[in-house]
Amino acid sequence: MKNSKISELDVEKVAEFLELPPSKISELIEKGNLKRNWDEYYDIYRFQGHAPQMEDGTVLIDHHGSFELVRGFPKIKRAMLLEPAILKNFKEIPSVVVEEKMNGYNVRVIEFRGKLIAFTRSGHVCPYSTERVQNFLEPDFFREHPDLVVYGEMAGPENPYVQKDAYGIESLDFFVFDIRHKDTGEALPVNQRREIAENYGFNQVRLFGDFSIKSASSKITEIIRDLGKEGREGVVIKDQAMVLQPVKYTCSESNCSDLRQAFKFYNEAGRDYLYSRVIREGFQSHEWNENEDEFTQRCLRLGESILRPMKKTIEEVESGDRISDDFRIRVKDREIIFKFRDYLDRFGLYVALEKIERIGDEYVAEIRKVNKSTNDKTLAMLEGQLWS
Amino acid sequence: MKNSKISELDVEKVAEFLELPPSKISELIEKGNLKRNWDEYYDIYRFQGHAPQMEDGTVLIDHHGSFELVRGFPKIKRAMLLEPAILKNFKEIPSVVVEEKMNGYNVRVIEFRGKLIAFTRSGHVCPYSTERVQNFLEPDFFREHPDLVVYGEMAGPENPYVQKDAYGIESLDFFVFDIRHKDTGEALPVNQRREIAENYGFNQVRLFGDFSIKSASSKITEIIRDLGKEGREGVVIKDQAMVLQPVKYTCSESNCSDLRQAFKFYNEAGRDYLYSRVIREGFQSHEWNENEDEFTQRCLRLGESILRPMKKTIEEVESGDRISDDFRIRVKDREIIFKFRDYLDRFGLYVALEKIERIGDEYVAEIRKVNKSTNDKTLAMLEGQLWS
Repeated sequence: MKNSKISELDVEKVAEFLELPPSKISELIEKGNLKRNWDEYYDIYRFQGHAPQMEDGTVLIDHHGSFELVRGFPKIKRAMLLEPAILKNFKEIPSVVVEEKMNGYNVRVIEFRGKLIAFTRSGHVCPYSTERVQNFLEPDFFREHPDLVVYGEMAGPENPYVQKDAYGIESLDFFVFDIRHKDTGEALPVNQRREIAENYGFNQVRLFGDFSIKSASSKITEIIRDLGKEGREGVVIKDQAMVLQPVKYTCSESNCSDLRQAFKFYNEAGRDYLYSRVIREGFQSHEWNENEDEFTQRCLRLGESILRPMKKTIEEVESGDRISDDFRIRVKDREIIFKFRDYLDRFGLYVALEKIERIGDEYVAEIRKVNKSTNDKTLAMLEGQLWS
Repeated sequence: MKNSKISELDVEKVAEFLELPPSKISELIEKGNLKRNWDEYYDIYRFQGHAPQMEDGTVLIDHHGSFELVRGFPKIKRAMLLEPAILKNFKEIPSVVVEEKMNGYNVRVIEFRGKLIAFTRSGHVCPYSTERVQNFLEPDFFREHPDLVVYGEMAGPENPYVQKDAYGIESLDFFVFDIRHKDTGEALPVNQRREIAENYGFNQVRLFGDFSIKSASSKITEIIRDLGKEGREGVVIKDQAMVLQPVKYTCSESNCSDLRQAFKFYNEAGRDYLYSRVIREGFQSHEWNENEDEFTQRCLRLGESILRPMKKTIEEVESGDRISDDFRIRVKDREIIFKFRDYLDRFGLYVALEKIERIGDEYVAEIRKVNKSTNDKTLAMLEGQLWS
C-alpha cells in the first residue's frame, strides 16, 4: 500500500459481516474479485467477476467499525419470443407492468459522507455521473431513506457511453427505474417506487401500463413498433410486486442502431455483440409473422446496419481522415473534466480533450476517442496487407 | 497402452529425426500435441495445436527404424482488398497465376504400405476419403514419387462436410491444387505440378491464367463475379514458382452461402464465422465502388443469408419437425460406411445411418446428423424460456 494513511480492510470483520469464512475474503482479495477504489473513494470496494451470492458490481463500504453493502443491479434476462416468454415467466400473476427500457447507461446512487455518489454497473464511482446526479436528484430522499439505493438510466446526448437524441433531452438526465434495499437488493414494488420517486420529483422511466397476461404480448408488440419508429430501445416487463424477475424486450431498430454504432469501429466490434443482435432479429421476424415484403425490409435493415457504417469508415480512412468516437460532457465543476479523463485512462480508454467551453455556469468539454484498432486495420488493408 | 502389440514411439529417435531435444518431444506427447492415430494406422502420428516450425496437421509416420514426415497444408491468407493485396504481396514478380478455389474439403494423399491414404487437414486418416482416393488417383504416381504428397479438394454432393452441386459432379471427386515435398512442404512450381497431374490423369482445379500484376485485380474481379453467379467459391492467386505465399479471395455469394448453411443451425453458428464473412462483404463493397442499388442488393443478400435459414429452422421446430444435417456417402466397400460412422463418433459427431442402398457395384449411405443444440434452443424459446 503506497499511501500509509489508507488502512487495510479488516478481513475478519468483513467475513463476519458477509457471513463468509475469512479465507474466502482473503481469496477474493487475492484474486482481484474484491477491489478497492482509487482516489478519494478508497473506503469503497467492489466485487467483480464472481461475487459470492451477489450481483457483480456489488459495492462494500468500509465505515471503519461497520460495513455497508450496496448490491449490484441484477442482470435482466431477455425474451426472444414475447408471447411464450410472458406466459411462462409471469404465469403466477394476473398482469404485468410495462416500463420503458431507455438507452443510456445504468447508474446507482447513494449518499456517501454528505454527498451523492453514482456507481456504474460494475461498481466504479464515476466522476461525471457523480457530479451530474447532484443536480438531478433531491438529496432529502437519501437522508430519509439511508437503506435504499436508486437505480436509473443516464440518458441523453451529452453522454460518454451512449449518445441518444431520441429522448428530447438537451444534455443528460437521470431516469429512475428501480429502488432497492441496499443490503438485500430487494426491490420496492413498482407502484410504491413510482410514488416515492414522484414525491421527491425524480424523473422516471415511462410507464406504459399494467396489462393482463393474456393481452400483454399484443400490447407490447404495438408499443415496441412505436418505440422502434421513435428510435427508442424497448421495454422491461415487470411483476408489480417485483417478486418475479423482470424480462426485457427490444425493438429491431434498436438492435440495428447498436450494430450501426458498433460497425463504425468494425475491428473492435464484439463477435457476441453482432451474433446476439442477429439472433434477436430472427426470432422477432418469426413471431411477427412477417410477409415477404416486411421480411425483406428487415433483412435489408440488418445488412445495412452492418455494412453501411463499415463502408463509411473505410472511405474515411482512405480519404486520409481517422475515425473517432466523439462525445461531449457538461459539468459545473471544471476539475471533473480532468478527473473523468483520468478515470477513463484507468480503463485503458485514452481520450483527447478537444475543447473546453464555458456555457452559462457550466463547462462543456468535447472529448475524442480515437479507435486505433479500426483505423490501423483499415489502413493495413488499404495498403494491401492480408487479413490472416 | 491397451494393445501390447503397439510399440511406443522412440522419443530419442524422433528427436534426432526432427532435430529437436528429446524433452521437447516428450512435452509434445504429454500435452497431446503429438498424437497417435487409432485403429490400423497406429504407426501414424499427427501434430496438432502447436507443432514446432511445422504446419498444424503435419503427420509423422513411424516406420520402426526410420521416420517420414508429411507436412500439413499451409494456411492461405486472404485478400480483403484485391488490388492493393496483389500489388503488395506479389510486387517482386511480373505476373500471378490464378486457379479456382473449390468448396469442398482439403485432403492430402500419400501411399502407405501399398495403398493410398488420405489425411484431412488436421492430419487424421479419413476412412471415406481414403476409400474414395483409391478410385480417383493413379497409384503409379505415388510409387514413382515417394517423396511427394498430393493436396486436393474433395468436392461434390456426396460429401460429409460441404455438399455442392455447383461443380456438375454427380458424387464426389478429387481436384489437385498442390504437390509438395513431404518433408519440407516445398511446393512444385504451378506449371510443373499441372503437367505432372495431367500426365497421371489427375483432375485438377481450374486454371484461369497467368495475369500481369497490373491487370490481375481487374481480371480476377471479373472471374469472381462469374464464379459468384455459378455458386462457386473463389480463387487462389499464386506465384508461378510457388516461392511467394499464395493469397485467396472469394465471392460474396460464397460468403452468403456459408452463412445460409451456418444459420440453419443458428445456435451452433460460430461467432467468428459470422463476423469474418460480414467483414469480407464490407471490404468488397468498398473496392467495387458499388452504387446505392448494388449496395442495397448486397445488404439484402447478407441479411437474408442469415435470417432466412434461421426463420425456417424456427418454423420447422414449431411445426414439430427437427432440423438435421443430411448427407450421402458412396463407397465400394460396405464396411467403410461403419468405419466412417465410428470415425465421426470419435469427434463427438454422433450420426444416424438412415439407409444403405446398393447402386451398381457401390453402396450409398444416407446419414443424418441431428443438431441437438439448435433444436433444443429453438424449442426452449418457443416454450418461453429467456435467452440469458
